[in-house]
Amino acid sequence: MNVKENIKILVIKKPLKLDCGKTINNFPLAYETYGSLNENKDNAILVFHALTGDQFVTGINPITKKDGWWSYAVGPNKSIDTNKYFVICANVIGGCMGSFGPSHKNPDTNKIYGTDFPVITINDMVNAQINLLDHFKIKKLFSVVGGSMGGMQVLQFISNYPDKAITVVPIACTSSHSAQNIAFNELGRQAIASDHNWSDGKYLSNNTLPDKGLSVARMAAHITYLSKKGLQEKFGRKLQERDSLKFGFDADFQIESYLRYQGSVFVDRFDANSYLYITRAMDYFDLVKQFDGNLSHAFKKTKAKFFVISFTSDWLYPTQENKDIVIALNAIGADVGFVEIKSDKGHDSFLLDVPDFLKTLKNFLDKSYLEI
Amino acid sequence: MNVKENIKILVIKKPLKLDCGKTINNFPLAYETYGSLNENKDNAILVFHALTGDQFVTGINPITKKDGWWSYAVGPNKSIDTNKYFVICANVIGGCMGSFGPSHKNPDTNKIYGTDFPVITINDMVNAQINLLDHFKIKKLFSVVGGSMGGMQVLQFISNYPDKAITVVPIACTSSHSAQNIAFNELGRQAIASDHNWSDGKYLSNNTLPDKGLSVARMAAHITYLSKKGLQEKFGRKLQERDSLKFGFDADFQIESYLRYQGSVFVDRFDANSYLYITRAMDYFDLVKQFDGNLSHAFKKTKAKFFVISFTSDWLYPTQENKDIVIALNAIGADVGFVEIKSDKGHDSFLLDVPDFLKTLKNFLDKSYLEI
Repeated sequence: MNVKENIKILVIKKPLKLDCGKTINNFPLAYETYGSLNENKDNAILVFHALTGDQFVTGINPITKKDGWWSYAVGPNKSIDTNKYFVICANVIGGCMGSFGPSHKNPDTNKIYGTDFPVITINDMVNAQINLLDHFKIKKLFSVVGGSMGGMQVLQFISNYPDKAITVVPIACTSSHSAQNIAFNELGRQAIASDHNWSDGKYLSNNTLPDKGLSVARMAAHITYLSKKGLQEKFGRKLQERDSLKFGFDADFQIESYLRYQGSVFVDRFDANSYLYITRAMDYFDLVKQFDGNLSHAFKKTKAKFFVISFTSDWLYPTQENKDIVIALNAIGADVGFVEIKSDKGHDSFLLDVPDFLKTLKNFLDKSYLEI
Repeated sequence: MNVKENIKILVIKKPLKLDCGKTINNFPLAYETYGSLNENKDNAILVFHALTGDQFVTGINPITKKDGWWSYAVGPNKSIDTNKYFVICANVIGGCMGSFGPSHKNPDTNKIYGTDFPVITINDMVNAQINLLDHFKIKKLFSVVGGSMGGMQVLQFISNYPDKAITVVPIACTSSHSAQNIAFNELGRQAIASDHNWSDGKYLSNNTLPDKGLSVARMAAHITYLSKKGLQEKFGRKLQERDSLKFGFDADFQIESYLRYQGSVFVDRFDANSYLYITRAMDYFDLVKQFDGNLSHAFKKTKAKFFVISFTSDWLYPTQENKDIVIALNAIGADVGFVEIKSDKGHDSFLLDVPDFLKTLKNFLDKSYLEI
């Protein structure tokens, strides 16, 4: 992984007290923008990325040279129309695309943090990103939008900063990580920690990489992003470049080859310790508990207009967990819309070419923008 | 793992041609029996175990010193009543509880097989076990019963030996491993192969054990055995012996501690290469393809009475896949009953104390036995 110098960095000078109790300051927040901020500064959308995303939302990611992770949704005339809106996205703290994370050096010791990096939370992530508003002199965002862990940040953001966004779009997410969610994340962490090269997180100092463990973690996560039906339709029992079973342990089936490929390309763009830290932040996320068991209280100070989106085949953050957010908003008479999009593509639906979703998101944003 | 000398072994002298093309003979099949074979020899039930099971169905397993894997269902006055029936169960070939498997020595080279062991199939497993009938001079079994991979063996057995069982009880299984099933198994295999100690399967010769990889594989599988709802009800976000989050990577949550424990105890009783071979056999299982796309043809030669059982919260082998077996049987006018048992315990329901299931199984067997 080669984090190039052309990454945009905002150095956050103001001290940020983390949930773990430690305070950080003078730390880098890497970000990217798309479109132009208008004169009124009322067209800004803060997009939050998911577990393995980064600030390069659309177009070609200058580091990986591949399409940005939300190229279907963000761009000129797309759902989040960059001809109209100014899109900002920051790499989360704890990440590995330029923002302050475990692969950085500890200025006090001049050693790479590794697992000495403080454990961060979704709350810490959004409290770092709020600084982007000052940086761009934006008083109020037109929208905060994100899917999966991005959706968790959306919920935390509007809870922390109730007057900083006009519209709020949490997608395919949850207000509290479930036991099954934690279980899959723990599986990934154990896969990494089991890698001989992980060396208790000191691999960068040792010039080794726990690629095998990180690859297994990615494979595990990837299965959860797709639906059983989607996998069956796409792969079923199709064989990989062979006419018959080979009676060995090579990838006989296309699904095996696909997973191995997903694992192998992931390790080129992601840091294993960042994977540990970000999954930990997700597991710690419990907005319900933050408000003593009453999720409604998280939103009672905001007048923002919410639009919650879920997908029929998402079994990682199923519709019911998205509906729980809607129920909490309804309970306080908040302005909230909800749609469950029919899709066989599982949790990944929000990242993929799912026309009903893309149209729905565009309509909500564009109609809401006309009203401001 | 210490496979003791008191394990009962049937040496299969007759050559067995495996699906991979190789022929094996003079190989050990480890088995156990419960109850007594009656004079008419008409009260025998062949039970097939699942992926990580073994021949020690009930009572205390003499090797692990823990309860047998089906202690809820098998025993005096239980669903499979050992006061009434003679229960036989064999360790599958490829396994690690005494039957011919990858931890055995190759007599030709005097070296431990490791991954030189031939890849075996569900078909090979049942073709090895048919020899138990000759051994006990049983002409026809009263029943063949099994859950999960045990159910696959049930289906394969009656397809291969249509006149060798009066009743047939496949539980929580499938006629063809799905892409998602293969994906989870491949994840487990990759976790093992990623372990530095696996050494291309030669760990026993090297006096090392890929315990970390095998443990991760077990954790992955274990998640699939439980339902999302069951996990939430049992663990939710409960903390493990602490009042608050510790902002580290130890097991903060009970679900993390539980999974780590499941992984750690598993490696004491299971062989990593056996895990590779048995998951491969499951992935290769496709009874539909064996009969050119028409599952009904697998059963057209038998007059056996079928009873198919599924569980509402089983997402590994969901009800629909069990119903597909019923549909194939109905299409040829076979004698088939079906029940979907309501349970939040996921795929593991068949192994657990699920009274509706245990009663239903008992009623089917006992009523059917009265009719013979």
